[in-house]
This record gives sequence, structure tokens and C-alpha cells, in this order.
Amino acid sequence: MAEHFADRLTQAVRRRRTAAIVGFDPRIGRLPAALTPPDPHTPHSIAEAFERFGVGIFERIAPLVPAVKINIAFFEPLGEAGIAAFWRLIAHAHAAGLLVIADVKRCDIGSTAEAYARAYLGGADDPRDPATLPDAVTIGGYFGRSGVQPFVERAITTGRGVYVVVRPSDPGADAIHDHGDPPLHEHLARLVHQWGQAEGAIGSCGLSCVGAVVAARRADEVRHLRTRMPQTPFLVPGYGVQGASAEACAAAFLAEGRGAVVSASRSVIYAYESRAPHERDWLTVVEDACRRFAAELRIE
Amino acid sequence: MAEHFADRLTQAVRRRRTAAIVGFDPRIGRLPAALTPPDPHTPHSIAEAFERFGVGIFERIAPLVPAVKINIAFFEPLGEAGIAAFWRLIAHAHAAGLLVIADVKRCDIGSTAEAYARAYLGGADDPRDPATLPDAVTIGGYFGRSGVQPFVERAITTGRGVYVVVRPSDPGADAIHDHGDPPLHEHLARLVHQWGQAEGAIGSCGLSCVGAVVAARRADEVRHLRTRMPQTPFLVPGYGVQGASAEACAAAFLAEGRGAVVSASRSVIYAYESRAPHERDWLTVVEDACRRFAAELRIE
Repeated sequence: MAEHFADRLTQAVRRRRTAAIVGFDPRIGRLPAALTPPDPHTPHSIAEAFERFGVGIFERIAPLVPAVKINIAFFEPLGEAGIAAFWRLIAHAHAAGLLVIADVKRCDIGSTAEAYARAYLGGADDPRDPATLPDAVTIGGYFGRSGVQPFVERAITTGRGVYVVVRPSDPGADAIHDHGDPPLHEHLARLVHQWGQAEGAIGSCGLSCVGAVVAARRADEVRHLRTRMPQTPFLVPGYGVQGASAEACAAAFLAEGRGAVVSASRSVIYAYESRAPHERDWLTVVEDACRRFAAELRIE
Repeated sequence: MAEHFADRLTQAVRRRRTAAIVGFDPRIGRLPAALTPPDPHTPHSIAEAFERFGVGIFERIAPLVPAVKINIAFFEPLGEAGIAAFWRLIAHAHAAGLLVIADVKRCDIGSTAEAYARAYLGGADDPRDPATLPDAVTIGGYFGRSGVQPFVERAITTGRGVYVVVRPSDPGADAIHDHGDPPLHEHLARLVHQWGQAEGAIGSCGLSCVGAVVAARRADEVRHLRTRMPQTPFLVPGYGVQGASAEACAAAFLAEGRGAVVSASRSVIYAYESRAPHERDWLTVVEDACRRFAAELRIE
């Protein structure tokens, strides 16, 4: 069995001295001019541009942050060309020295959930080179243990991780996640804690391979969820753009800055958009934005 | 704007005189011997076998049923080769005369949900040939309107459909879908009804382009959900294997057999497994199983 995901992530956070991770959400209309393919755009030309965009960014940010979160949704409209680029980017990120969280939010039951778990976490029955697979994956908790169990089992045996969405950042999801008493997100927190206590799920660092996506909307709420999930690695999304507050982010952490990573996407990878063209090269602007973000989430 | 999804599906059901649709969940270990590629299996050889399996089946079942539901999960472990086969199979199914529901259960918020909606429903900003896209897609309701709205908007403008999971078939999901009072699945039913009332969402047949996946576990429950969602097309999964009862299935329908389709996957596409090898060719066994299934869901 490979080393435990939470141990690897904890070490990488210590090494980079930051809990900041970068989200990679590529959009054709927002690429730097130098990478925008000529019209008409084809799925292949867009996918190729996304790949060059990612390779450039990953090399610059790898010394600064422990991990990158790659969002598959932006690759799926490109069909096979997009999916090929998505998988190659995972390998590129690993080669640069980054851990990779595949942001796929898959949700289904039974043998379908099992097929998704195999696709993103691999396993002994999977012929692919383990280095080409992500270190962790995001999923929804919509189908309860039916949807989560196949991921937990493969996470344990492969040394990978699975983050279950417990509290989304968008208030548009509240009709679901505030439903009931206790509200669904608290109920999910209890379940995620319980799933994370499975045999073999806890790493040497005391954290489970079953994590939670917890938006930092209100500090008291995050604090409460942290109490419910004391051994759960938190992934806090949307730093900057989605309105996570510094105080609420802080509540996601255990002692000594352990137990959480915080992601920012657009504020880092599109940092050049707010600059005058040619003022400085786009990669240096992205690197500077990443360095500032890393400093804000500095772990001593 | 293309013709409304619910109108097209209603017509196709009338034409084939059945509410039965076939789910396509290909697995390498269960393919007919004639299609199993030689060892070692590669993603390309498996994807090619899945495609031949689908093409063979779609041609045989197209005269018998209105639609096929293709489950992307079984293609994703094959990477780009799998995704290429998935998309080609949609075109093959259309060419054979079948409507296609892409069973993808995507779930996310905001611009990510928008990217998924574009990937599976297309739109004016999408350069692909509309004939190569599915007629409808399944999604989760995990993120409420945040996750659903982008799909509803594209369904309305493209003449396609979106089925939101309201009641999963697997009791392992009950910890989520029975949570609260009223239980989450009832709450979801109200939301799905409401989303389906958006301007332009109702077709000439009186049904919305926003549908619901409703497992037929108990007749009284299905009847209750039908009351809550009087204009919602139902997709009832798992006939045969996942334990849907005939009485509970019947409760999904409106008057005159309108408003619902019922899917069976394994009991049709792997029907040859229970036969002695070479007794009859596998496609004829699948066709016979499909014909029996269609007869059980006959609409006069």
C-alpha cells in the first residue's frame, strides 16, 4: 500500500509552509493572448491551449504550493481531446512536484459509483501507471454510503484521498444543505466522520483519507463542522472569488495549521487579466499572485 | 429552438408502444465472447469492444424501444478512448433511430455546472453537430438551483431534457434522501416541479423538460411523488435488477401511459449470460429480452 494521502499532503504543506492550493479552471476566453489559438477554435486546439496553460502555471507554482486542484468540468465540453489533456495535466503536475486533487464531484450508486472510483483512484485491478492518477478526488455525498463507499475503499488501498462535499460555497445550494433539523450539512458531517473511521483510513498524522469540502462562509459554522469532523482533512474552496473570509478559513484548521488546505482558482490563474497587456509576462504575474496567496495561508 | 424534449419522447413512446428504455452499462468481463478483445486489454481495445457491443445492440433494439440510456461511468476508467467511444455511441444510437439519455449525474455549482451543462446539452455557443449530442441528461440535485439552473436553461433553449435524481433506487442513499421532515426526496420533488415551471419549459404535451429520476421502490411513495410533480417526466431506473415493482412502476405514469419511461440495463444487455454458449447468437437473445421487456411496459 502506498503512503497515506493525508500524510503526504501534511508533509507537502509543511515543506511549502503554506496551506494554499491552486485551482485550475481553464476557460478559452480568459487565456493569455500568447496561448489563445487562432480562430476557428476546435476542441483539439482548445485542449492543447489548456494543456500549455497548465504546464506553464504548474512549473511556476510547484515551488510555492503543495497541490493543484484540476476541475474536469472545463475539459468535458471538449470531448476526448479535453479528457486527454486533463489526464496529461495530472502527469505534468506530478512531474512538477505537485500533489493533484481531481475536482470531479462524481455522484452515483453501486456499480456505477465503483466505476467512477476506479476511474479516478485506480487500484490493483487498474493497469494504469499510478503516477498518472490524481492523489485525491472530490465527490458529492448525494447517494450516502452507496455513492461514497467505493471511493473510501479504493482510497484506503491505494493511499489516495476522497473529499466529500459537506458545505458548498454557493448559497444557491442552501435549499438542499440547510434542509432538515439538524440541517443536511451537519448530518453529512457526521456521516463523513464515520466513513473516515473505517479500518485503515487514518494515517500516521491522525487524519483520515476521507476529507470534506467545507466552504468558509461563516466562522461559527466552520468551527462547528470542525468539531464534528476532528480527523477529517478539510478542503476549503473559493478563497478570494467565492467569498471565503479569513476568520472562517482559520476555523477549518486544527492545531499548528494542520488538517486543511484552502484553494483559490481564478484570483491566481487569471491574475494577469487585471494588468495592462505586456506590462509583465503573464506567468510572472500568476507566480506573484500565487506567492501572495501562499503567504496569506502561511503555516509556520 | 428544436422541438421540445418531452414532446419528442412522448411521440417516440407512442410510436414504439412502450415506455421501456434500455440502459447501456458496458463491462469488459461481461461482453459476449465474440466481442472480448484478446489479452492484454488496453483502454483502446476495451473502448472499441464497448462500441461494437453498443452498435450491435442499438440496431436490434431501435425498432422496439424509444430510447437508450448510456452510462458514462463505465467509459471514464478508459480515459480519452472511453470518452471517444461514449460520444460515438450517442451518434450511433441516433442513427439507429433511438433517443439518447446521457446518464452522467453531474453535480456542481455556478460556472462549473455551466461547463457540465454545455458539455452534455450544447447550445448556440457550442460548435458541435447537435445530432451528436444526447437528447437528455441525468444530474444530481445536490447543489440545488446552483447546480440545476444551468441545465434547465440549456434544456429550454436546445429542446433537450434534464432529469434530476429525486429518489435513488439504492437504500444506501436513504440516509440522505430520507433526511429531514419532510424527507429530502419530497423536498426535492417540490423543487423539481418548481424548476420545471420556468418560462418555455413546458412542451405541447403538457410535460416539462425538467424530469425526475424516481426509483419504483414503493407504490405509495411513487404515487405521492407523482402528485407533487404532475408535469414532470419520470425516469424509473433499474427495472428487473434494482427491484422496481410493477405496481410501483405503474404509479409513475399519468393517464394513458404518459409521463414516464422505465429503464432496464443488465437484464437486457447481458441476457445471453444465462444461456448456454452458442445456443443462439447473443444479439438475438438480447433482442428477445428487449422485446419481452418492451411488452411488459406496453402502452396502448
